[in-house]
Amino acid sequence: MLHRLLIHSLPLAGLSLLALIPVHAADKSLLDQARSVFTPLDPKPVAGDKPATPQQVLLGRTLYFEPRVSADGAVSCARCHQPSLYGTDGLPTSIGANHRVHPRNAPTVLNAAMQSVQHWRGDRRSVEEQATKALIAAPSYGNANYEEAMGKLKAIPGYHVLFSQAFPGEPDPITAENWGTAIGAYVRTLLTSSAFDRFLEGDDSALSARARAGLRTFMEVGCTGCHSGAGIGGHLYQKFGLVEDYWKATGSTHIDRGRVEVTNDPADLYVFKVPSLRNVAMTAPYFHDGSVPTLPAAVRVMAHVQLGKALSDEQIIGIVAFLESLTGTMPPAFVTAPPLPVASVAGAAPSR
Amino acid sequence: MLHRLLIHSLPLAGLSLLALIPVHAADKSLLDQARSVFTPLDPKPVAGDKPATPQQVLLGRTLYFEPRVSADGAVSCARCHQPSLYGTDGLPTSIGANHRVHPRNAPTVLNAAMQSVQHWRGDRRSVEEQATKALIAAPSYGNANYEEAMGKLKAIPGYHVLFSQAFPGEPDPITAENWGTAIGAYVRTLLTSSAFDRFLEGDDSALSARARAGLRTFMEVGCTGCHSGAGIGGHLYQKFGLVEDYWKATGSTHIDRGRVEVTNDPADLYVFKVPSLRNVAMTAPYFHDGSVPTLPAAVRVMAHVQLGKALSDEQIIGIVAFLESLTGTMPPAFVTAPPLPVASVAGAAPSR
Repeated sequence: MLHRLLIHSLPLAGLSLLALIPVHAADKSLLDQARSVFTPLDPKPVAGDKPATPQQVLLGRTLYFEPRVSADGAVSCARCHQPSLYGTDGLPTSIGANHRVHPRNAPTVLNAAMQSVQHWRGDRRSVEEQATKALIAAPSYGNANYEEAMGKLKAIPGYHVLFSQAFPGEPDPITAENWGTAIGAYVRTLLTSSAFDRFLEGDDSALSARARAGLRTFMEVGCTGCHSGAGIGGHLYQKFGLVEDYWKATGSTHIDRGRVEVTNDPADLYVFKVPSLRNVAMTAPYFHDGSVPTLPAAVRVMAHVQLGKALSDEQIIGIVAFLESLTGTMPPAFVTAPPLPVASVAGAAPSR
Repeated sequence: MLHRLLIHSLPLAGLSLLALIPVHAADKSLLDQARSVFTPLDPKPVAGDKPATPQQVLLGRTLYFEPRVSADGAVSCARCHQPSLYGTDGLPTSIGANHRVHPRNAPTVLNAAMQSVQHWRGDRRSVEEQATKALIAAPSYGNANYEEAMGKLKAIPGYHVLFSQAFPGEPDPITAENWGTAIGAYVRTLLTSSAFDRFLEGDDSALSARARAGLRTFMEVGCTGCHSGAGIGGHLYQKFGLVEDYWKATGSTHIDRGRVEVTNDPADLYVFKVPSLRNVAMTAPYFHDGSVPTLPAAVRVMAHVQLGKALSDEQIIGIVAFLESLTGTMPPAFVTAPPLPVASVAGAAPSR
């Protein structure tokens, strides 16, 4: 009885000594192990080919929300990369201008600039190239050519001012290349640090016990073979389906041959870019074709087809808890929509 | 020389006496005249049938940005009523789920709750009814029925919590009626006071000289016959084309018969709801069919077909300047997108 009373009335400091020292030692080892694989997110904008100016970032943020440049007037970057859905659209595969269905799932723009290449097959070198080429991609903005796209921007007087400020000295700054440069400058600022970064920086309390257990499992079973670094992925290619054909596990209705269609190298059959797992808990559905609707199911598929492992329910719950710790804080400049320049006032006194 | 020096060195108070008294008297008369026609915007949420709770407003704001409930997963309220475009989509007529083109232009949601009815033809009694019926309108959310729409919401666990908090005590709160109630509660908060309200409250400096001249013209030529009150319109019906068929001035390619198709009353032929003019400078293109792309052209059309008047360029420039003073400050709860509940975690350990 005395014993029980003692236990129940122990001061907090005593409890910590009794209960936390062994855990802390374990966490120290967990932290050391994690630090050998991951690095905290650097909150500074990801460097591009040239330093970006604030005017370019402002223009890029405006253009990001601009639908009037698309073939049907209803597609902006924000259509497939919505702030409310952590920079995705919640669809298996996106729907572009004139309802053209995109062949693949829209990855989040958050932390996208940290990746070594863009798009699932790595066929876009940079966020700038992605933004520019989207203008003339049929299942995206759907313009016939860059001139058509830029013509729509030029019809909106405010853009002459914004482009001139972003690209001073250029006689005709409204170009597809500058569109890409500006949007890229903005996207390079869209970084989301999370509880896991605080953990990597030494704050044990940033992860729950379940998330710490999940992190341990994540490293032990081998997920970190691909998902490592500051992006927890996003820096290499890998075959999807190392152990078993991916579509047998995902239930995909279409077999995507992956990067081989970009490189024509047979070694790239079923090869995709390994995505960053930052914010993965907020960006369902999963995989290049959005074929798996929930995160626990996606974790199970990955363990099975990539690592040949059948995880227990407890292991999956832990890994999901760890992945939830990668959900970051979205930048105010992303969740707050800027007002767009008003439509043409050409013919301030038209006689139509 | 002394005279010139005196003029140039007059203290500010002296200048005011010399220069401003006559102007002030004129403005006093302008203000009195304006106050007899307009009332400043009341920033309190527009009252609905029942008082709204903060939980309903929060739910409504979340649902406003939710595309996963639509037929193709790509339509939310925010698709046709974008914050970046002052609650419109910049299109002549909107594009809904599965690329169904809406027959009419999307009016802004800002200040919409102040109007006596909703939609161009007045076929929606309230913002609540508009939100609910949009769920099953083909060129909007495009669902086959309410059950289909609500089924998609019910599959997202977070909505069970949000609906229960917004509608406590209801055993099955995820209903189409509650969807409308919540979105309506949110839309009733989306009010934008502007420079013109400050003018009506007595601040002469809130309007430029050009805008004051435009306000005078606006009242003198008779625009206030329909565009009056706190909404500067939005509270009555009127035939579009009182003096001349509207399509001859707008260049409309389709003749919309207007409210007659709702009421079957021949007196309603070509009758539409008079829209509120708040934020009109930011919500091009204009009229029920978006047939006129610029505000000066729209002003010219209205003077011609409604009032039988040919305005001078100077009068149009003045009226446009006055209308620009109706551009308000958008609420932070509108321009800042809320994160949406994550997709289903059903089957936290699925064996798929």
